Amino acid sequence: MSDASARVESALALALAGACGPGAPPRLAAAMQHAVFPGGARIRPRLCLAVASACGDPDPALSDAAAAAIELIHCASLVHDDMPCFDDSMLRRGRPSVHGAYGAPLALLAGDALIVLGFETLARAASSSASSSASSGAWSGASAGSLADLVLILSRCSGMPGGIVGGQAWECEPCVDLAAYQRAKTGALFAAATMAGAAACGRPHEGWRVLGERLGEAYQVADDLADTLSGPQEIGKPGGQDALRGRPNAALQLGARGALARLETLVGEAIASLPACHDPDALRRLVLIEVQRLLPKDTVLRAA
Amino acid sequence: MSDASARVESALALALAGACGPGAPPRLAAAMQHAVFPGGARIRPRLCLAVASACGDPDPALSDAAAAAIELIHCASLVHDDMPCFDDSMLRRGRPSVHGAYGAPLALLAGDALIVLGFETLARAASSSASSSASSGAWSGASAGSLADLVLILSRCSGMPGGIVGGQAWECEPCVDLAAYQRAKTGALFAAATMAGAAACGRPHEGWRVLGERLGEAYQVADDLADTLSGPQEIGKPGGQDALRGRPNAALQLGARGALARLETLVGEAIASLPACHDPDALRRLVLIEVQRLLPKDTVLRAA
Repeated sequence: MSDASARVESALALALAGACGPGAPPRLAAAMQHAVFPGGARIRPRLCLAVASACGDPDPALSDAAAAAIELIHCASLVHDDMPCFDDSMLRRGRPSVHGAYGAPLALLAGDALIVLGFETLARAASSSASSSASSGAWSGASAGSLADLVLILSRCSGMPGGIVGGQAWECEPCVDLAAYQRAKTGALFAAATMAGAAACGRPHEGWRVLGERLGEAYQVADDLADTLSGPQEIGKPGGQDALRGRPNAALQLGARGALARLETLVGEAIASLPACHDPDALRRLVLIEVQRLLPKDTVLRAA
Repeated sequence: MSDASARVESALALALAGACGPGAPPRLAAAMQHAVFPGGARIRPRLCLAVASACGDPDPALSDAAAAAIELIHCASLVHDDMPCFDDSMLRRGRPSVHGAYGAPLALLAGDALIVLGFETLARAASSSASSSASSGAWSGASAGSLADLVLILSRCSGMPGGIVGGQAWECEPCVDLAAYQRAKTGALFAAATMAGAAACGRPHEGWRVLGERLGEAYQVADDLADTLSGPQEIGKPGGQDALRGRPNAALQLGARGALARLETLVGEAIASLPACHDPDALRRLVLIEVQRLLPKDTVLRAA
């Protein structure tokens, strides 16, 4: 396990330990654990930590908390998406979804509790960072500004109008704004991951938005490619679902070769957008490795 | 409308305007508005502002945000409680519940978005308060510490283990811890209201917990009294539901006279707990008026 992956798992375990400790109703505690462990690729929190490292990572506990908060919101959105009133999916990552294992009431509550836990995790880390760093007991300007920025970044990527919840809500509208749908449902959390990585370091974060947005779109295109090119063994679910269900799919619209070209353009734009930072080369390499991991086997990305 | 009520409505309108503005999916925006307006008694946010006033209210915009955040979490919990997987209630406050008016998917999303909006509202106010107050652009110790405290207060009263979500989860357990259930489901948000009022003023908030807890319990007893003593016209729903459904009810356990005595004890403890503050007399009067409002007609509280 890479250093970043170990940090993500340990930050998530720390957050869950606080929420699911003594006095917690046991079934909801188990449902929350089920929603978070074992995880998927943890791509968003690792991206958050990669940006924090590129920014010097002066307060690793706060960066860890930011990464965990991003992943908790992601897990919450999967739990609520799987519920009967949306996808009604009994399976997630090859095992029962939270709703499949614990029923709808606990899935509803687990999602709610994970959203709340994301914000609590940020405040808890900012709070202990402030009390340990300043001998005077006063807040330093950096960690204080960071917390407001982090809470705003997390709330905007999660809520209304432009976050995951807003994105999901387009599925309930008679007229869908497709660009807004994809931007909010997938792009917002990727952009939050890169921006939160910078904000946790007390750095201006707006310049990191494009990196996250382009990688979020690349992730979507890679997912579309996987849906059209892969067999069920590779992606853990039947391929060709988008064509069957008439969902928008870049690989169906552009062809596999066109989608791959689009993905290469997006990765190029992502890398070109990198703001001045401590270690841009390491971040550039990491972006290429991450995107390659998303692609179906035998599909090679040309170095951007 | 009292000054406090006007402040609460205006802070809620401001919060909703940000979430439901241009680019928002229209049906979810409407569902969120439906969940928040028109409101009920707004007792929690008015209590928050009363404590802030008693603490001198040095940053009214931050106090308003704290009060609004508390009420947004309360509204979110009502929306999710009314969903088919819990109470399956088509009515709320004498008109369609969010689920009744907009369906389960939008009720799920509206609750999620209102939770997120609670935290966003705090960070937005803390952020503009910091940028407007400090000519240097740096965060003042007070507003920075306040934001971390406010986010922690709001998350703990909402989430796991001791917040509303944790409380609701006891309904899904085979063995219910009744005290933990009531403390988390009703008491936590009242305690958060009083503590957030102090925290928004940059004051130590722990000493305000007992006031909120006792008033939360008094609210529960008053609700139990109303259920047993009132006719449907007075409380907007059929009385005697607790006896019918075998739910715990203080007025059934202690008798009406015993429940009233219990309520007077709680109010006395609440008032005795008041920490040193700017204007304790005004707060004491307000507590008595508020509790009297909760009681069925012709039931008079002896001044504590």
